[in-house]
Amino acid sequence: MAASSASSSAADPAAALDALVAAKGPLASSAAAQRDDAIERFEANLEQARAEIQEANAAECARAEADGLSAPLLRRLRLDGRHYDGMLASLRALRALPDPIGGVFDESEQPSGITTARMRVPLGVICFIYESRPAVTADGAALCVKSGNAAILRGGKEALQSNLLIAAQMDRALKEAGLPAAVAMLPTADRAPLDAILADPRIDMVIPRGGPGLVRKVKETARCMVLAHLDGNCHVYVAASADLAMARRIAVNAKIGNPSTCNAAESLLVHEDAAAALLPPLAAELAAKGVVLRGCEATRALLGDAAEAAAEEDWGREYLDLVLSCKIVPDTAAAIAWINRYGSHHTDCIVSGDAAEQQRFCREVDSSSVLVNTSTRFADGYEYGLGAETGISTGKFHARGPVGLEGLTTAKWVVRSAGAVRE
Amino acid sequence: MAASSASSSAADPAAALDALVAAKGPLASSAAAQRDDAIERFEANLEQARAEIQEANAAECARAEADGLSAPLLRRLRLDGRHYDGMLASLRALRALPDPIGGVFDESEQPSGITTARMRVPLGVICFIYESRPAVTADGAALCVKSGNAAILRGGKEALQSNLLIAAQMDRALKEAGLPAAVAMLPTADRAPLDAILADPRIDMVIPRGGPGLVRKVKETARCMVLAHLDGNCHVYVAASADLAMARRIAVNAKIGNPSTCNAAESLLVHEDAAAALLPPLAAELAAKGVVLRGCEATRALLGDAAEAAAEEDWGREYLDLVLSCKIVPDTAAAIAWINRYGSHHTDCIVSGDAAEQQRFCREVDSSSVLVNTSTRFADGYEYGLGAETGISTGKFHARGPVGLEGLTTAKWVVRSAGAVRE
Repeated sequence: MAASSASSSAADPAAALDALVAAKGPLASSAAAQRDDAIERFEANLEQARAEIQEANAAECARAEADGLSAPLLRRLRLDGRHYDGMLASLRALRALPDPIGGVFDESEQPSGITTARMRVPLGVICFIYESRPAVTADGAALCVKSGNAAILRGGKEALQSNLLIAAQMDRALKEAGLPAAVAMLPTADRAPLDAILADPRIDMVIPRGGPGLVRKVKETARCMVLAHLDGNCHVYVAASADLAMARRIAVNAKIGNPSTCNAAESLLVHEDAAAALLPPLAAELAAKGVVLRGCEATRALLGDAAEAAAEEDWGREYLDLVLSCKIVPDTAAAIAWINRYGSHHTDCIVSGDAAEQQRFCREVDSSSVLVNTSTRFADGYEYGLGAETGISTGKFHARGPVGLEGLTTAKWVVRSAGAVRE
Repeated sequence: MAASSASSSAADPAAALDALVAAKGPLASSAAAQRDDAIERFEANLEQARAEIQEANAAECARAEADGLSAPLLRRLRLDGRHYDGMLASLRALRALPDPIGGVFDESEQPSGITTARMRVPLGVICFIYESRPAVTADGAALCVKSGNAAILRGGKEALQSNLLIAAQMDRALKEAGLPAAVAMLPTADRAPLDAILADPRIDMVIPRGGPGLVRKVKETARCMVLAHLDGNCHVYVAASADLAMARRIAVNAKIGNPSTCNAAESLLVHEDAAAALLPPLAAELAAKGVVLRGCEATRALLGDAAEAAAEEDWGREYLDLVLSCKIVPDTAAAIAWINRYGSHHTDCIVSGDAAEQQRFCREVDSSSVLVNTSTRFADGYEYGLGAETGISTGKFHARGPVGLEGLTTAKWVVRSAGAVRE
């Protein structure tokens, strides 16, 4: 195994970065067909190496289980037939997307006679850091190759052998396609090489994929742009003007659709004029589905023991579970202020029948996605039509919200003329 | 003077920030006409207070001169009739620009039936830090109001009274226009309040306008996005395929058009096949215009004493003076690698008659502006048709190159449907 993965393993992170930096130019200039060819060969190589990779993964799963890895991490570590097929299907879908680089936009002739335009180009070198899931190795590598970026990958230590084998297939594919070695995998035994990478100015962006612990650590350490969200404390606000049947449907879907995802609702805000009609039947429906409500005083006055008392820390929490906090507010301004105070700038929804109120909510709620009469569950790159999801960013800069391939690019100015000089 | 400026002076930075944060919502929701009205009233108030402000400025200029302020800083401090008129003209031009916020783009109906779109919104609170020039107080305040942002301003201590008086006119204008107090001026006597501001997570972006010392300090201290360029080591590369008359015209203009600006050329790269025909006449023309050449060995072999010997540190320098370094390279790949190694990611030009070579240069040179057969002097927000210039950014994220009003905004996702839930 060591032999087949040697070339894509970055035992010396500094040397690995030198090679990735050298790969930047040829990658940035490469034709889309060549990068797509590399991804197609990657798929073929993964198909060919399927038995070897799944065997390594099965051994790692057995070892991790014996070592007492938690059930959710163990689930993510597993690369069985269905997951393997899913990994390959993602690569095919990515390959089919249009080339994200080289495109020129905003072309404009200026009064001086020069022509200004903007060109999409790769960022340079991107570092993916993730926990046990080995499919991210394939996904991260292919996202970077598709977008003309070099990639340095660091997965969880329990998946190291599967990761190295997967990365080796990309390494081979790049060679076969005539592209430079643009993907390197960090050995994960110790933390020091990762810290060195995060402090290296040659890294253009870090994308941590994992729990809040990982994301927080990366955000604290990295000197460059970090594309990430720390957590998703998503709100559903039901205005007085709301269609209450719609509000109930959205609140239930947003909470129970998939409680463990970052776009699940964690908090319900209800205008005081809608509370008496909405909350008792909604609370009953949620309770029937196993959801625990934690309410403010006004909520409890209305629902009695059907809601537990919320503590101050409930308002900022991402439960990722069948728990929902509930606060009754006097007006939409209070709802907006509440969300901006306790929310996580991820995804927040208003259920409202009033256009001016919807507009105000959209403009003033400081979140990456603002949804009108739509379940928070839709906040997702695929649902937004991006074709791929690199991550969800709650920062205000570069890429905000669900991020597709464009988030792995930047735009430079390209100016042309026939020898113009400025007087 | 103290009385008229009290409300816009932020003696307690933390309290000032509280007020600015409270202003964010109403500003983000305000109509364009209301923000333009505030800027128009600001112009009128500045016209009315012209004598008082110019008197304060004259006193500050006299004091600074007596204190031995350097000639360039003294020049920037001066707000005489012509500068005052220029300040007002800039405000009128800014007011005439289209509203940069609220616009919706990339609207798209998804297969699920939801409609996704992106909406331009203000960033929130922006901090402008600048050196002596008091007109930046007017410019920074108006750029922020136009784009719906709150602003905290910090000018040089030698211009404090003029700055406070100018900020007070905006304060009055905002009140008159029915907008919240969205602009605060930091007293500049000591450094501590500024450090506190730069570390405050409620600041969304810092824009330092000044020399490399100021920019470096801000970049090291700030926790948020810094929109800036450290320096402008711009290159003109003359390829073998270049029209040499054009190359000569561009090189001369790029160097001597205005040597003290960041878009002046500091380094000339010449393909070895073009060197013998280009360099001797170009060197003579540059020498006649007072430019000192510092060349590599090959350059000196060609030009003899017409070029000084360049030291290694010359290649990375921003002279801001009538000095130009000159390096002969074997091919375009070497020119690209040279620029990416020694350049400052600001603005670099290729003079070339070959489309494939131009394209390669555009894709691989890692700079915010890449110019083809065009003088570097055009790298400027007004020349690029932005209508205003917030600054020039050499970072790859958010805003790259000359930045207009859009750089003071971000885009959030806005999703609408008639109650869609996700299965």
